[in-house]
Amino acid sequence: MTQVDPPAASSAPDDSDLFDLTIIGGGPVGLFAAFYAGLRHMKTKIIDSLEELGGQLTTLYPEKLIFDVAGFPKILARDLAHQLIQQAMEAAPTISLGETVRHLEAIPTPEGTAHPLYRITSDKGVHHTKTLIIAAGAGAFSPKKLRIRDAATFEGQGLHYACRSKSVFAGKRVLIVGGGDSAIDWCLNLRDTAEAITLIHRRNQFRAHEDSMRQLQATGIAIHTFCEIQQLESAEGRLVAAHIENSQTKEVRRLDVDAVLVQIGFDTSLGPIKEWPLKIERGSIAVNSHMETALPGIFAAGDVAAFDGKLKLIATGFGEAATAVNYCKTRIDPKAKFFPGHSSEMTPQHESTVTI
Amino acid sequence: MTQVDPPAASSAPDDSDLFDLTIIGGGPVGLFAAFYAGLRHMKTKIIDSLEELGGQLTTLYPEKLIFDVAGFPKILARDLAHQLIQQAMEAAPTISLGETVRHLEAIPTPEGTAHPLYRITSDKGVHHTKTLIIAAGAGAFSPKKLRIRDAATFEGQGLHYACRSKSVFAGKRVLIVGGGDSAIDWCLNLRDTAEAITLIHRRNQFRAHEDSMRQLQATGIAIHTFCEIQQLESAEGRLVAAHIENSQTKEVRRLDVDAVLVQIGFDTSLGPIKEWPLKIERGSIAVNSHMETALPGIFAAGDVAAFDGKLKLIATGFGEAATAVNYCKTRIDPKAKFFPGHSSEMTPQHESTVTI
Repeated sequence: MTQVDPPAASSAPDDSDLFDLTIIGGGPVGLFAAFYAGLRHMKTKIIDSLEELGGQLTTLYPEKLIFDVAGFPKILARDLAHQLIQQAMEAAPTISLGETVRHLEAIPTPEGTAHPLYRITSDKGVHHTKTLIIAAGAGAFSPKKLRIRDAATFEGQGLHYACRSKSVFAGKRVLIVGGGDSAIDWCLNLRDTAEAITLIHRRNQFRAHEDSMRQLQATGIAIHTFCEIQQLESAEGRLVAAHIENSQTKEVRRLDVDAVLVQIGFDTSLGPIKEWPLKIERGSIAVNSHMETALPGIFAAGDVAAFDGKLKLIATGFGEAATAVNYCKTRIDPKAKFFPGHSSEMTPQHESTVTI
Repeated sequence: MTQVDPPAASSAPDDSDLFDLTIIGGGPVGLFAAFYAGLRHMKTKIIDSLEELGGQLTTLYPEKLIFDVAGFPKILARDLAHQLIQQAMEAAPTISLGETVRHLEAIPTPEGTAHPLYRITSDKGVHHTKTLIIAAGAGAFSPKKLRIRDAATFEGQGLHYACRSKSVFAGKRVLIVGGGDSAIDWCLNLRDTAEAITLIHRRNQFRAHEDSMRQLQATGIAIHTFCEIQQLESAEGRLVAAHIENSQTKEVRRLDVDAVLVQIGFDTSLGPIKEWPLKIERGSIAVNSHMETALPGIFAAGDVAAFDGKLKLIATGFGEAATAVNYCKTRIDPKAKFFPGHSSEMTPQHESTVTI
């Protein structure tokens, strides 16, 4: 669900717009925070700049095996993301995807409440919240761009950094650039849609999953290693060819193409969050042992959080998320217990208690 | 594997006896610490006072569903324990069960090493280690005892607090006391072994799993609620009867029995660890943000660890375990990185890398 509200006036939000907890980041740590907020009966919203939940698990390395999440001797990143999403959905959070946060401001305290509310303005609207957990990992993702002259002029005119719809490539001669899972997955996914596919990669080793590589080789798709795009060529306002240089032989060849799909990774950046009045240390947000930032009611958890002893692991981020959520809860309701008990002692709606 | 070495002389251990890391506690946090130590290539030992791994997950509530471990929308405690054990076994730690630690002492630094070693003496032997993680949860478990006069004199003479072998109850009239999973499971497990079984419970609500209760009711085993043992009766040196009082009616009835199996829970205690030169705060061990105690090289993680912001959850304990292990590693080898990278970037022995 994408929020499309226009920026609000400065009046206080009504109850339907006001969330107990807003989580910036729908990766593993944000998802576990949302689940845990559900256990604490908090009205929760997740905002993420990506178009899907799961963060790096889904976007960067879905086919990688992860060994260091407790309880999983091994699990594919994609499968872990699915499980975390399923767990988070138990809490029925509101979810706003494809939305990048920009500004943060405290707004006047409504009558009868002890603490200020926060207003977050994004590229798509405004959000009001009593507490905030920044679980933004390494920050918002943006695809790495081609480093050639005039690349920007081809964007949307045959040059793509994402595939929103396969139909864009229907019947076309497509050049795919990259050596990781996403480049190889798009070769496989588009082979029945495109007229022809060529894959180039600047190295001769691929980071993609071995099984995907075997599938790729079975397709007969042309693969050129040690190759990069030197320039793109247009005619009558549309892309017609790519000039490809082999870094070993320095040979340049011209390839007729109608579309180029570049999948060479992502840049990450905290972006506007860096300008928020938090204490930022080397790209991370300083927190105390409650996971609270320099701004009361604003917390951080996971890779984005910095403190002495911080270890950037999914396993530590999960614990930090639960800690942050419990302090959010006690901030909103000082009479609430910090520690609610163990989930096995609670009575989830879908389980009955034993009373015989 | 139970360690049965005699207490050692005060000489330094040879290499085969010396561990990089010893973990006190084979519950979820200790198991994850052992797994993570394997990732860091540390020679690791787990010591636990229980006879099996898994801690409370296995001993206290194996049939309870857990909802707040990240990545598992729900999982039986027993199944989570199995997965954690499987994960820990990847590291091939040495495991000493049924062994209770007693003393801790620093021993002279071997030539060429920067830090003292520690010697841990238990009820069964001695252990030498470069670093130690105390992941003892609520402490060592001991079964709750009957609070009646002369109970101690019946222990082993018909009165049991555990079932090490079903044959002990073969052909006997057995009284089982308790209302949790273990009491009900023993009713079910012993019904083909014992001549007759009676179950009494001091309340009329049972904490056992609903499904177990249904199975129990199908057996026809006599169940008396609101009942407690008032006294045990012996004749010719052996148990012959239990006098049972109904707390509602105050009625006392005499029941012929050959054996009593009491399953009314566990007491936990840090025991001798309380006397170690650590900073103990309300039954927990104070640590800094590195999870290190007042003694350098001695760490604590999980429920036993205390710091500002500490939340006693399995999810937080896992993160603390990984943090503690990494600081153990850098203590042993100051040139080692604190953060080794993500497991998905490592090359486990059972996975091949993609090089095509």
